[in-house]
Amino acid sequence: MADGEEVGNTQVIFRGYVSGFPNESDLYLANSRISLKVPEGSKAVVVKNLYLSCDPYMRLRMSCDANYFQPFKPGSVMTGNGVAKVMDSGHPSFSKGDLVWGITRWEEYTLVTATESLFEIPDTDVPLSYYIGILGVPGLTAYVGFYELCTPKKGEYVYVSSASGAVGQLVGQFAKLLGCYVVGSAGTKEKVDLLKNKFGFDEAFNYKEEQDLATCLKRYFPEGIDIYFENVGGAMLDAVLPNMRVHGRIAACGMISQYNLDKPEGIYNLMNVINKQIKMQGFITPSYFHLYPKFLETILPHIKEGKVAYVEDVAEGLQNAPPALIGLFSGHNVGKQVIQVAME
Amino acid sequence: MADGEEVGNTQVIFRGYVSGFPNESDLYLANSRISLKVPEGSKAVVVKNLYLSCDPYMRLRMSCDANYFQPFKPGSVMTGNGVAKVMDSGHPSFSKGDLVWGITRWEEYTLVTATESLFEIPDTDVPLSYYIGILGVPGLTAYVGFYELCTPKKGEYVYVSSASGAVGQLVGQFAKLLGCYVVGSAGTKEKVDLLKNKFGFDEAFNYKEEQDLATCLKRYFPEGIDIYFENVGGAMLDAVLPNMRVHGRIAACGMISQYNLDKPEGIYNLMNVINKQIKMQGFITPSYFHLYPKFLETILPHIKEGKVAYVEDVAEGLQNAPPALIGLFSGHNVGKQVIQVAME
Repeated sequence: MADGEEVGNTQVIFRGYVSGFPNESDLYLANSRISLKVPEGSKAVVVKNLYLSCDPYMRLRMSCDANYFQPFKPGSVMTGNGVAKVMDSGHPSFSKGDLVWGITRWEEYTLVTATESLFEIPDTDVPLSYYIGILGVPGLTAYVGFYELCTPKKGEYVYVSSASGAVGQLVGQFAKLLGCYVVGSAGTKEKVDLLKNKFGFDEAFNYKEEQDLATCLKRYFPEGIDIYFENVGGAMLDAVLPNMRVHGRIAACGMISQYNLDKPEGIYNLMNVINKQIKMQGFITPSYFHLYPKFLETILPHIKEGKVAYVEDVAEGLQNAPPALIGLFSGHNVGKQVIQVAME
Repeated sequence: MADGEEVGNTQVIFRGYVSGFPNESDLYLANSRISLKVPEGSKAVVVKNLYLSCDPYMRLRMSCDANYFQPFKPGSVMTGNGVAKVMDSGHPSFSKGDLVWGITRWEEYTLVTATESLFEIPDTDVPLSYYIGILGVPGLTAYVGFYELCTPKKGEYVYVSSASGAVGQLVGQFAKLLGCYVVGSAGTKEKVDLLKNKFGFDEAFNYKEEQDLATCLKRYFPEGIDIYFENVGGAMLDAVLPNMRVHGRIAACGMISQYNLDKPEGIYNLMNVINKQIKMQGFITPSYFHLYPKFLETILPHIKEGKVAYVEDVAEGLQNAPPALIGLFSGHNVGKQVIQVAME
């Protein structure tokens, strides 16, 4: 096929706003066509998408009130983070063949006009999919939330919910590298085993098997929790609060348990924030992109030296994108959920 | 009367643990006797109590589960902050005639053994009662919460609940001195007038007259709230959260609306902590006593130059201590509630 020729382009379309639990049918596949050349005089790039990221926050964008995020547009192609290869470039910073990560669309090929959201991949000695996971936004999320916001100290007690997910698995390993005592929770035996045997958490438990989360946390943290990395919200947060220690810190980057509820659950134990002098800090990772180079310097050696493990759940092909995304909300994924669109 | 002679000592006794709304009958007056000399060889001091402080947190100490604070002891004399005059001292740091503030008891005279909780009054050019208010723990609370924890900037939007109270009135004035836009809420027209006319708040409203607090706050803060000084909790906090701005800060030192409830109200809008990247910091003022000298340096000139106003509600005599304390929880007090036990 000659450069510039139009080719078929399978796309994943967002059907329309969702309330309650999303279904695979809220997304559908469509066929389109795209030119592999950027339009004459444009500073855009055309990329071939290799990997796409499924992230919990995407559920928020599926609602018409997306809670600060921009809602997906009904009838339009889904967007999110991906790893891609440049097919053609009108932009001086990118050349054909470059590998990039950043904001792309859920389709085979994308014409990216917002090139400021694309970053060159600096190191290809690691699997490319890492750049939408441990080396991408989830990795930076773990780094910022743990190191920057929680000012952790050796020997502190750290609790991570949704601990086998893209962010949680790394938070736990950062905490262990620093010499903290780390407990994680997840929703299946397989995940609990991963936490203990693969990621080196000191303890892990299946929250679905616990009758009373506050009592359970008391059992794992008889001395209380210094740092809670909040991925879950709702009843879990309410159980954590009375178990926090004085001067505890909570980094909050997600509350996945609340995303499918029409009305969020009530939190009743906030008086602990005062009594225990707790700092609760919400954050959105893009506000910390300036720390990305520092983060890469920290994490790349850890990965190459085998000091940090990473587990991905790879769905193959765009046709598996809808179940992959929806599966996040019932915890089907084991590790970071990605979609492999094409081989490099 | 000769030094060392026993004298009559009226006391306010805590009857027993309270659930729900406290009543005046939860306290009662009793007569006792006390020697005005410290026991031979003791390092204690005997003080004559002049002013006693009524503070919202005392409600927590009236419950058997005092939520981090130490519960009052049923059948024992109430304790709290006061201003007093030393009658006799076995401690090298204190002499007869010294004026002090710190932890004392609700009675005419107190034998203080925990002298580390007594501080000499450094400046008597201001009314002595100020040392349990604007120059004491409430003043330091306003200073720490606003300046240290909220890192305020000129031009920011500041909301203060319970704004005419001991802490709130000062927070609002600090914010005005810095050039912030400040709105306060209180529960009567008289208090709202005080906020606007005495303390110089830009706007003030009676929260009891508002059907929908979130809508009301939206009206006063069309651009949102940068800093919320949290004295109230519950429905007020829930209404504030969606009105916060990105990178907003909440200093939380009290949740008076929740103290008389058997089960606290639910907070439903915590997702805003993430989306708006809010920092919520709980604190207990004694953790910041090291800042007291710095605070005094800041506040004393403001008071002497008339740049900061201060309103107290003075109940006269120990017989009026029970209604003064209980009145806090229905907002009877206008300004800082103190009990004058004796003239100097």
